[in-house]
Amino acid sequence: MPEFLKLLPAKEAMERLLSHLPQPSPPIEFIPTADALGRVTARPIISPENLPPFSRSTVDGFAVKASSTHGASDTLPVYLTLIGEVSMGTAPQFSIRLGEAALIYTGGMLPEGADAVVMLENTQIVRQSSQGGQFGELEVLHAVASGENLIQVGEDVQAGEVVLPAGVRLRPAEIGALLALGILEVPVARFPQVGILSSGDEVVPPEVHPAVGQVRDVNSYSLRALIQRHGGKSTLYGVLPDRPMVLRETLAHALAECDLVVITAGSSASARDLTASVIQEMGEPGVLVHGIQIRPGKPTILAVCNGKAVVGLPGNPVSALVIAGLFVAPLVDRLQGVLLGVPQSGVPARLATNISSLAGREDWIPVRLVPDQKGGFLAEPIFFKSNLIFNLARADGLVCIPADATGLDVNETVQVMLLAEF
Amino acid sequence: MPEFLKLLPAKEAMERLLSHLPQPSPPIEFIPTADALGRVTARPIISPENLPPFSRSTVDGFAVKASSTHGASDTLPVYLTLIGEVSMGTAPQFSIRLGEAALIYTGGMLPEGADAVVMLENTQIVRQSSQGGQFGELEVLHAVASGENLIQVGEDVQAGEVVLPAGVRLRPAEIGALLALGILEVPVARFPQVGILSSGDEVVPPEVHPAVGQVRDVNSYSLRALIQRHGGKSTLYGVLPDRPMVLRETLAHALAECDLVVITAGSSASARDLTASVIQEMGEPGVLVHGIQIRPGKPTILAVCNGKAVVGLPGNPVSALVIAGLFVAPLVDRLQGVLLGVPQSGVPARLATNISSLAGREDWIPVRLVPDQKGGFLAEPIFFKSNLIFNLARADGLVCIPADATGLDVNETVQVMLLAEF
Repeated sequence: MPEFLKLLPAKEAMERLLSHLPQPSPPIEFIPTADALGRVTARPIISPENLPPFSRSTVDGFAVKASSTHGASDTLPVYLTLIGEVSMGTAPQFSIRLGEAALIYTGGMLPEGADAVVMLENTQIVRQSSQGGQFGELEVLHAVASGENLIQVGEDVQAGEVVLPAGVRLRPAEIGALLALGILEVPVARFPQVGILSSGDEVVPPEVHPAVGQVRDVNSYSLRALIQRHGGKSTLYGVLPDRPMVLRETLAHALAECDLVVITAGSSASARDLTASVIQEMGEPGVLVHGIQIRPGKPTILAVCNGKAVVGLPGNPVSALVIAGLFVAPLVDRLQGVLLGVPQSGVPARLATNISSLAGREDWIPVRLVPDQKGGFLAEPIFFKSNLIFNLARADGLVCIPADATGLDVNETVQVMLLAEF
Repeated sequence: MPEFLKLLPAKEAMERLLSHLPQPSPPIEFIPTADALGRVTARPIISPENLPPFSRSTVDGFAVKASSTHGASDTLPVYLTLIGEVSMGTAPQFSIRLGEAALIYTGGMLPEGADAVVMLENTQIVRQSSQGGQFGELEVLHAVASGENLIQVGEDVQAGEVVLPAGVRLRPAEIGALLALGILEVPVARFPQVGILSSGDEVVPPEVHPAVGQVRDVNSYSLRALIQRHGGKSTLYGVLPDRPMVLRETLAHALAECDLVVITAGSSASARDLTASVIQEMGEPGVLVHGIQIRPGKPTILAVCNGKAVVGLPGNPVSALVIAGLFVAPLVDRLQGVLLGVPQSGVPARLATNISSLAGREDWIPVRLVPDQKGGFLAEPIFFKSNLIFNLARADGLVCIPADATGLDVNETVQVMLLAEF
C-alpha cells in the first residue's frame, strides 16, 4: 500500500527525492566536438597545448623591445630602424634588437627579441627605404611597457590545464574554445532514456478520433518535447487504461529499459491513487512524496524504485507540464551529470494586476508579457482553469508566488520564467 | 570601394540593416507536430474542432442541476437521488433531472441535463441502495451555481478559431495543445541556410596542426552552433586566404546558395578592409554599416546585397560570438518569420565590483555568476583581453552597459544574459 505523506513544500519534496537517488554516473560516448552543442562533458577536459602557442600582437603596429621606446612622447619621439614585416601565419625570419622595429598586424606572431607592440596610431614612418615600406626609419610617439599590446604564450590556456570540468553543457563558446585547442572529439554523457506512460480510461492517442467522452493524449508529446530540450531521449509506452495489471506490467517494463520514468495519471482521484499504489510496488524505497504544496500540480508523486526516479504527474496537461519543468527537467539534467542549482533565467516585468495566493502554497501563474512605454514589460496574469492547455500556449511565461507570500501587488517587479524553459 | 560610415550605435545599426531587407517569406514545409519543437509556424493554425468537445467536470463529485442545490448548507442540507455513475471515456447513458445527482470524476463528461458539479467533500451519501454505491440518497452541504466545477464545450478553443498565428516558435506547450486538437501535421518555415566563411592567412582548419604563427579556425564552429540553436542550418565554406579573388568568388557562391552569409575577417586592419570592399562588390545597396559603437565588436560590417544580408564579423573569436548573438541570431530568427523584439531572458544579479565604460559606447562585459547568501547571485566581471576564447567559455553570461552610461556601480542590480543564448 502506498504511504500517504502530508503535503510537502516543492523544495523539500525535491530534496527528499534527491536524497534517495544514487549519484549519477552517466555512460560516456565520444562525439565530434563540432556536433556537441548542448551535450554535457562526461570527464574533465585537459588542454594538450598552450593557447596561444606563440605570443601574438593584439593590435596593428610595430613589434619592438619596450626598452627601445623608453621616454618616447609626442614632443620627444624616439627613432627606430624598421627592419621588416611579420607576415600573417608564418614565423618571422628575423629578430628584434634594441633600436629596431618591425611592422606587425593583429594576430601576427611576435618576432624573437620583441616584448611589446607600439600601436600604428602612435607612430610615423619618417624615412622610407628604397627596399619598400617595411624598411626605413620609424618615429615612436608613445612609450610602451614590456608585454603591452600582446597576448603571451599560454595566456588563455596552459598545456595540461583542466579547461572544462565534467558536467558542463556545451555552448557555442565551448565548441569554439575546444576546437581552438585541436580537441576534435569530446567525451559526453549519453542521452538519458526517459520512459513516458500516459494513463486514463478517457484518453486516446492523438491520431485516433476521440469518441464522445474521450480526449486525446497531450502529455506524452508535450513531455517528450520538454525532455528533448533538456537532452533526454524519450520512449513512449502509450496510453494505458486505469487497470492495475496493465499499469504494473508496463511500468516494470519501462523501469527496466529507462533511466527515469514519468507517468501521467488519469485525472480522477481513484486513478491517481491507483498510480501511486502501482509505483509503490516497483521497488524500494517507493513513493517518497505524494502531494506537494503547489498549484498547479498538487497531486504530484515522487518516487525512487531500486535507484531510479519515478515521477507521477497530474493528468491535466497544464499541471503536468509545469511540474515536469520543475521536477522532471532537473532530473534529466542530473542524469547527464549537470550540476543542479544553475541560475534560472527569466524576464523582469511589472505586474499588471494584484495576484492573491494562499499562504503556504507555491503558486505558478501564467502571464503574457506586454511591452510597456519604458522599454520594459508588463506581466498580465492569465487567470485560467488549469485544464485548458491553450491558455498555457497563450502565455509567455510563469510567475512564481512563493509559499510564504499571500500574493503579489500591482506594479511589483517579478521575474517571469519563459515558457520556452518548460 | 566600400563606403566608410561613421560608427553607429548598435540599435541604429540593426535598424539600418533591417530597413534594407525585404520582408521574409520563408518557404513552408509540413512536418509531424510531435517533431516540431523549436520550429516556427509558417501560417496561422486554425482549430478544426471545439476543445473540449464536450462539457467536462474539473473535480471529483456529483453532476447536478445547479437549481437542485439552491440554499444547501451545512446546517440545511439538500437531499438528492443518486441515479448512477459517469464512466471515464464514455458518454453517460442517462440524463439528470431536478432532484437527481450522478457520481462523476475529474475529466468525466457531464450528463445531459446537468449544469454543475458538487465537490465530493461537500456531500455525503446518506443511504446506499442495494444496487451499489452509485445509487441511493445524497446529502449536499453546499449550493453550486450553474457552470461551477466544469469546463464548457469549446471553453479552451472554438472550432474555426486561429489558435496560433504565423511566426510562433513551438514550445512543449504548443506541441501538446496542437495534438489535443488532432492537428498531427503543422506548416513550419524551412530551416534558413546560412553560409559561413572564415578568412585570415594565419587561420587553419581545426583538424590541421598549426605551424608556428598559425592558429586554428574557431569561428566557423562556434557560429554554426549559435545558428543551429536559432533554427538555422549552416554551410561552411572553409578558411580562405586574405586574397580578393578567392574571397570574391567564394562569397558570390555562398550568396547564391544561402539566405544569409556571415564572414569572419582576418584580424588585421587591412584584412578587414579587404572584406568590406569584397562585400561591397556583391550587389546593391552593399555595405550599410562599417563600425559599431560597441565593445567587443567595433569593426562589424552589416550589408545587404541584392536582398540578402551579409554580416562581416571581427576575426577574434570573442567579438565574433558576441556580435553574432546580437546581429546574426535575430536575422536567423527573422528568416523563419519570427517577430523580432521578443523579451530577452536573463538572470538578475548584483555586481561584485564597479565597472567603468566609455560614454557613447555599448559595452558587453563577461561575468561569472556566484551564488550569494540570500539565494541570489553576484555577477563577477571577467576583465579580459577579447582575444581569449576560454575567458568567454569561463563566463556564465554578459552584462550590457548602455551607451549612455559611464559604468555600473558595485551592488547595482543587473540583468545577466546567459551565454547559452549566445
